[in-house]
Amino acid sequence: MKAYRLDDIAAQLGGRVVGDGSVAVTQIATLEAATKTQISFLTNSKYRAQLAHTGAGALILSEADADATDIPRIISGNPYAYFAKVSALLNPLPDVRHGIHPAAVVAASASIDATASIAATAVIGAHAVIGAHSVIGEGCSVGENVVLGSHARLHPRVVIYHDCVVGDRLIAHAGVVIGADGFGFAMDGDHWIKIPQIGRVVIGHDVEIGANTTIDRGALADTVIEDGVKMDNQIQIAHNVHIGAHTVIAGCVGIAGSASIGKYCRIGGSAGILGHLQIADHVEIAAFSLIGKSIREAGSYAAIYPFSKTGEWRKNAVHLRHLDDLVGRVKTLEQEIKSIKGSAS
Amino acid sequence: MKAYRLDDIAAQLGGRVVGDGSVAVTQIATLEAATKTQISFLTNSKYRAQLAHTGAGALILSEADADATDIPRIISGNPYAYFAKVSALLNPLPDVRHGIHPAAVVAASASIDATASIAATAVIGAHAVIGAHSVIGEGCSVGENVVLGSHARLHPRVVIYHDCVVGDRLIAHAGVVIGADGFGFAMDGDHWIKIPQIGRVVIGHDVEIGANTTIDRGALADTVIEDGVKMDNQIQIAHNVHIGAHTVIAGCVGIAGSASIGKYCRIGGSAGILGHLQIADHVEIAAFSLIGKSIREAGSYAAIYPFSKTGEWRKNAVHLRHLDDLVGRVKTLEQEIKSIKGSAS
Amino acid sequence: MKAYRLDDIAAQLGGRVVGDGSVAVTQIATLEAATKTQISFLTNSKYRAQLAHTGAGALILSEADADATDIPRIISGNPYAYFAKVSALLNPLPDVRHGIHPAAVVAASASIDATASIAATAVIGAHAVIGAHSVIGEGCSVGENVVLGSHARLHPRVVIYHDCVVGDRLIAHAGVVIGADGFGFAMDGDHWIKIPQIGRVVIGHDVEIGANTTIDRGALADTVIEDGVKMDNQIQIAHNVHIGAHTVIAGCVGIAGSASIGKYCRIGGSAGILGHLQIADHVEIAAFSLIGKSIREAGSYAAIYPFSKTGEWRKNAVHLRHLDDLVGRVKTLEQEIKSIKGSAS
Repeated sequence: MKAYRLDDIAAQLGGRVVGDGSVAVTQIATLEAATKTQISFLTNSKYRAQLAHTGAGALILSEADADATDIPRIISGNPYAYFAKVSALLNPLPDVRHGIHPAAVVAASASIDATASIAATAVIGAHAVIGAHSVIGEGCSVGENVVLGSHARLHPRVVIYHDCVVGDRLIAHAGVVIGADGFGFAMDGDHWIKIPQIGRVVIGHDVEIGANTTIDRGALADTVIEDGVKMDNQIQIAHNVHIGAHTVIAGCVGIAGSASIGKYCRIGGSAGILGHLQIADHVEIAAFSLIGKSIREAGSYAAIYPFSKTGEWRKNAVHLRHLDDLVGRVKTLEQEIKSIKGSAS
Repeated sequence: MKAYRLDDIAAQLGGRVVGDGSVAVTQIATLEAATKTQISFLTNSKYRAQLAHTGAGALILSEADADATDIPRIISGNPYAYFAKVSALLNPLPDVRHGIHPAAVVAASASIDATASIAATAVIGAHAVIGAHSVIGEGCSVGENVVLGSHARLHPRVVIYHDCVVGDRLIAHAGVVIGADGFGFAMDGDHWIKIPQIGRVVIGHDVEIGANTTIDRGALADTVIEDGVKMDNQIQIAHNVHIGAHTVIAGCVGIAGSASIGKYCRIGGSAGILGHLQIADHVEIAAFSLIGKSIREAGSYAAIYPFSKTGEWRKNAVHLRHLDDLVGRVKTLEQEIKSIKGSAS
Repeated sequence: MKAYRLDDIAAQLGGRVVGDGSVAVTQIATLEAATKTQISFLTNSKYRAQLAHTGAGALILSEADADATDIPRIISGNPYAYFAKVSALLNPLPDVRHGIHPAAVVAASASIDATASIAATAVIGAHAVIGAHSVIGEGCSVGENVVLGSHARLHPRVVIYHDCVVGDRLIAHAGVVIGADGFGFAMDGDHWIKIPQIGRVVIGHDVEIGANTTIDRGALADTVIEDGVKMDNQIQIAHNVHIGAHTVIAGCVGIAGSASIGKYCRIGGSAGILGHLQIADHVEIAAFSLIGKSIREAGSYAAIYPFSKTGEWRKNAVHLRHLDDLVGRVKTLEQEIKSIKGSAS
């Protein structure tokens, strides 16, 4: 692994070196695990005491912690982002060979940039466009007329259906499916008939999509994912959903059809949003919470049933089916008290 | 795109033309987005006012709305189903080349109808049968002895394990897995041993299965999906589940082992059904609701924790762990009031 | 199918034969479905009456039920585990041809055991190691430097990212993704930057992973799955999770980053565990329950909203948003009663 001196890192990424800038590191690690040739980081001053016990050869610290150690260090206004950048520097993506593997299957009419890479067993459809430096992993399927920007990274077995459009620097992990039909049927007498899903999925720049996440194409108009959206694994995005820029979505979330999510939202794991709702910018939704009405105001929202030992849960939960009755009983009591107090006065 | 005159559409699909039947349309669109060469539709008279503002060249309307506009229109008893049919007419599936792609891998003993299509990198196992006009997408894996009916459409990367049986007109989206082992283990001393899953998955006609949905094979008997069932993405169907005809299941639902669901049910997104339960026909289950007991009666059922701002949620939810105590306190109050009133009289 | 005599089965698997040990069976089935040439089993004496109606040619029974029938039978201390073993005996895995299919794509530097099998369209990366008798299904992708033990069974379309390490006897069903990037980003001004995920996934022996389940690689340290863990379909395991030996996890569960689960736990379907929590050994978590705090004590835990007809649910659920207020009203009533009783005495 290549070693980087602290002063070289700071020259490249900014920040202020305190202590011996000639110290060189090859990898990043937690305070607990780091060794002499590794750099670590502290993002929360509350844990400052841990600095005393680290074996790290160098540190990334905030201004507030700049003097909390003698270990050579880089001071940054945003140590967490700085850590991310240092890690990217120390762990560059492996070089990928340009060109089309002989075991790839590429339509003659597809347009593959000369700097792109198409792996073995990938299949590229007619008239698809693959941008510069994009890497298409093995077993990927890129449908007809798909336009994929530059510097994309499709891990193995990603499927993009026909006509979808994707910006630059997409990262799609294994098993992602973009552009499958939305779930639309009409009851015709005694059976369902399919509503053709003729919209597309349109994805902006700098989007990352986790393993086995699915994003359905629109029914009539498009499903839209704006720039900088980050999605975890196993998420389901239904047809005609619109997700605003820089929103992050944790694993297993389901967003129903035509919901519109604002920018800079944070949606917790396994949460859900019902169809056709509007969610404002900067809304935070707790894990496991179903949002059943539009949210017009930024802020944090939750709907979690608190867990307990199963015996206690059972004893308490049974009353939920009679809560309205309980409220009625309390109301009656209040009236009776009022009447007793009235007759007593 | 091919243009269709209203009177030609009505001749083909039924319905009554009002206004100029020679008007031709090439695509279907929402009232909001439709242009002069497009046809739109109104399914709910409540939104009739929107007709005044549409740029659509033609409309699909119910009898009740027949006179609500001057735009040329087709009147149908079921405008939503009619819309689906018009869309299918205007958006025919692309032609697929018959035959086996040279980069497909097909067992010599498999039986592939001459009108079927096997894409590059698809793998068809020994003794598998692929029906007429069926299309097997790239990267699909069809196991040994699988029988797949006619006019099936397997999108890329669908896996069907050995011995499963599927009717006609299946649509399986990318990443679907049919027939993986059910989740069955027996504790043997201090470790689990696997229970072989020797049942199959048996699927009827006209079933659609969304992207990355999984349907496990039976442990001893079969897992059964009846005709006309429609499943969205990311659904998990466990071993020995039985799903009645024409039931629709939204995304992310989990149905546990040996549950039996009736016909014409509607199961909302991320809902769950515990194992071995029986659900009657025509049951509707709300999104996010866990069904923990059999449902013997048609109707609508729900179990959703209502969301609120996180601060309020926290303040309220804490009492759920003491609900039984609260009910006891109300009971005590009722007795005390009774005793006060008794001694006062 | 091969027939096995009861006394041959008992000689191989243990247990005591009662009745005619020369009776031979070819398959295992439920009491209800079994025929003369099949063996069935009873694991719960409560259902002993069913023995009278079975057509099975032989049975597996517990000592307590040894005399409950005249049908030839094998008596076992653990009839359920015995059933699993008999089923495995009667249903051996099909033989797989050794060697590398000509349509597989194997890096020259990969090390494939001579007894391993690599299917058509599988891709094996540089320096990967595949152990003895392991079977890699079609469309699988095994990344660079992956080490996979012996007797593994990767069903079609499993992806293992670079550098992951897996023990012996892994069963991974179709669509499993091991080692995709964990979900880690740092906010840098107005946008998210990616935190490289440089840990691995390390999996012990005898692990089974259900279809379309995803296990993310660690951010800095590794994600760890210990020996004997069994996971169902559609599960999401985030980065740096640690799952103790012999824990079983039902479908659709999500486990957030850095959570640590004990040994011999049982996690119900669609349950969730928040990040950084510790769960003790032998903890059972009910389906659909979110665990939001560490659990230090073995036992059973739940957090399920009880379902009801939607009308009743609506009537009751509305009060959850005012539960704190209700508790306050009860408190007020208690004080008023106290004061009335005080003034009355």
